[in-house]
Amino acid sequence: MPELRKDPITGRWVIIATDRAKRPADFAREQVIPHGSRFCPFCPGHESKTPPEVLAYRPSGGPNNDGWTLRVVPNKFPALRVEGELQREGDGLYDKMSGIGAHEVIIETPDHMATLSDVEEKRIEDLFWAFRDRVLDLKKDDRLRYVLFFKNHGESAGASLEHTHSQLIALPVVPKRVLEELEGAKKYFDYKERCVYCDIIRQELSSNTRLVLETDHFVVACPYAPRFPFETWVIPKLHQSHAETLTAQATQNLASVMRSTLRRVDKALERPPYNFVMHTAPLQESSNPHYHWHIEIIPKLTRVAGFEWGSGFYINPTPPEESAKFLRDAAL
Amino acid sequence: MPELRKDPITGRWVIIATDRAKRPADFAREQVIPHGSRFCPFCPGHESKTPPEVLAYRPSGGPNNDGWTLRVVPNKFPALRVEGELQREGDGLYDKMSGIGAHEVIIETPDHMATLSDVEEKRIEDLFWAFRDRVLDLKKDDRLRYVLFFKNHGESAGASLEHTHSQLIALPVVPKRVLEELEGAKKYFDYKERCVYCDIIRQELSSNTRLVLETDHFVVACPYAPRFPFETWVIPKLHQSHAETLTAQATQNLASVMRSTLRRVDKALERPPYNFVMHTAPLQESSNPHYHWHIEIIPKLTRVAGFEWGSGFYINPTPPEESAKFLRDAAL
Repeated sequence: MPELRKDPITGRWVIIATDRAKRPADFAREQVIPHGSRFCPFCPGHESKTPPEVLAYRPSGGPNNDGWTLRVVPNKFPALRVEGELQREGDGLYDKMSGIGAHEVIIETPDHMATLSDVEEKRIEDLFWAFRDRVLDLKKDDRLRYVLFFKNHGESAGASLEHTHSQLIALPVVPKRVLEELEGAKKYFDYKERCVYCDIIRQELSSNTRLVLETDHFVVACPYAPRFPFETWVIPKLHQSHAETLTAQATQNLASVMRSTLRRVDKALERPPYNFVMHTAPLQESSNPHYHWHIEIIPKLTRVAGFEWGSGFYINPTPPEESAKFLRDAAL
Repeated sequence: MPELRKDPITGRWVIIATDRAKRPADFAREQVIPHGSRFCPFCPGHESKTPPEVLAYRPSGGPNNDGWTLRVVPNKFPALRVEGELQREGDGLYDKMSGIGAHEVIIETPDHMATLSDVEEKRIEDLFWAFRDRVLDLKKDDRLRYVLFFKNHGESAGASLEHTHSQLIALPVVPKRVLEELEGAKKYFDYKERCVYCDIIRQELSSNTRLVLETDHFVVACPYAPRFPFETWVIPKLHQSHAETLTAQATQNLASVMRSTLRRVDKALERPPYNFVMHTAPLQESSNPHYHWHIEIIPKLTRVAGFEWGSGFYINPTPPEESAKFLRDAAL
């Protein structure tokens, strides 16, 4: 019997196919393996082919030369621009504002042939440091309300260049899905005086059915009402609304947790395309007791029919209990 | 300068690329042309290959034989089932219910080689009559709260069979996206004592910049803050919350409007894959003054990166003013 399950944060119902569950081998998908390309603007020596860097970790040498281990550059085709004024305007019953913001690319390693699950842990740790450095810088611009940090891995997950990279989009508004989580978490807190994510952590650790892994600082689990097969969340144990307040020790732990999780995803699903996105509280708001930052990892396994776009209703062919079991068993 | 625009119903912001707008030829896409297949369970003579029909329009002959012009059959692999009890249950902090519902396929024509823009208008009119007949029947089951009517056209839009068909999913809950529209429209009405969709019709008819076509009963326009290039809405001029209350005359007009719109989409975008979905008020609720049923047509032109899934934030490379112009110019 299929089951309808409700996401306790946003209230979204999903259909979970419990009887005819799809297993990893049932999904046709692209296998993401870098092949090398004739010319890659993200490779060392080609620094002049990107806009000038806004941040780099480089043991020695000057800006926009090689020798770096991580580079952050503006997107060459940005969705939003920092220059100009934030004009707000009505248009009859409609509302608009100018597209002020930032769109940056984080090149995670100089190695063209590596993916995020191949690189050494330090590279992943640096990725999260770079996120933090950029957030602290972008926060100074009080027109910006949110920094969305995400990764498209593999062509069918939206990556247009093969060389592994993540992206940041800084926005003058808070994205709808984050807003929904903020509101849902606030409502839960107002009623129970507890953070819904902290409650989720407690329940997942005690039930153990959707848990993928647990460390000192993090819990990795498949959510109760996932939209997609093998959707996986990485949640810090310590309650924090903003990801940029993570301690050095926890950041190091996060690198290890992300690497282990992505390697499990790679092993269980044979190097699938995936996306991850970080959900954190808005830039200019102070810490709060109800929201809890986390990372959502979504392997790209199913072709989503537009009906999902039209309805916000998801049919998930793999129960999270099975996804979690496959990921737990994909030990390394 | 890119522009941020807000959907006046749901409050979702989207980024509209106004400077480097993508034109129809800029999108790589599947071209949907039926090729015929060795065996099609939806073709006349193969009636026994589907579950027994729940509705058919057949000038003569008995059920589950040929001679029909339209057939409605249960989906062979349904997402939900009518049999069983609607059990609701808590699971710690989570909530679930049994997957009670219905999942039906509407085979729109016996002609395997035709698409919805090729068939005669009467076939499209019958499609909307079939929707109405099924809604009136499903409404009797008071466990069901919503009937979602949609179409996946072309493989990359999620159609698994080539023979043109639409689908109905009857649900014991109202889908999130519809709920958001209902709430947004209610809020607007509470403040202004006007329906937001009626206001949209007035503004689109007077500004004329996003209008695709207008008839006695319908307005077809690209929405102000579309998530996707060439997203197009079909809105009845007369305020009605429920689509099943449409008059016979308006239903006839809707068939002509849908055919003309889909033909324009086919012409402007070279027979692209698309989805459409109908948004109407919940099954068991009486008519209300704030919600206004409509159809959303979404050509499948862009590869959506998972970041959209994670954020609910959309970057649309084609302003709706340009989409509307292309569709207006694709006169027949």
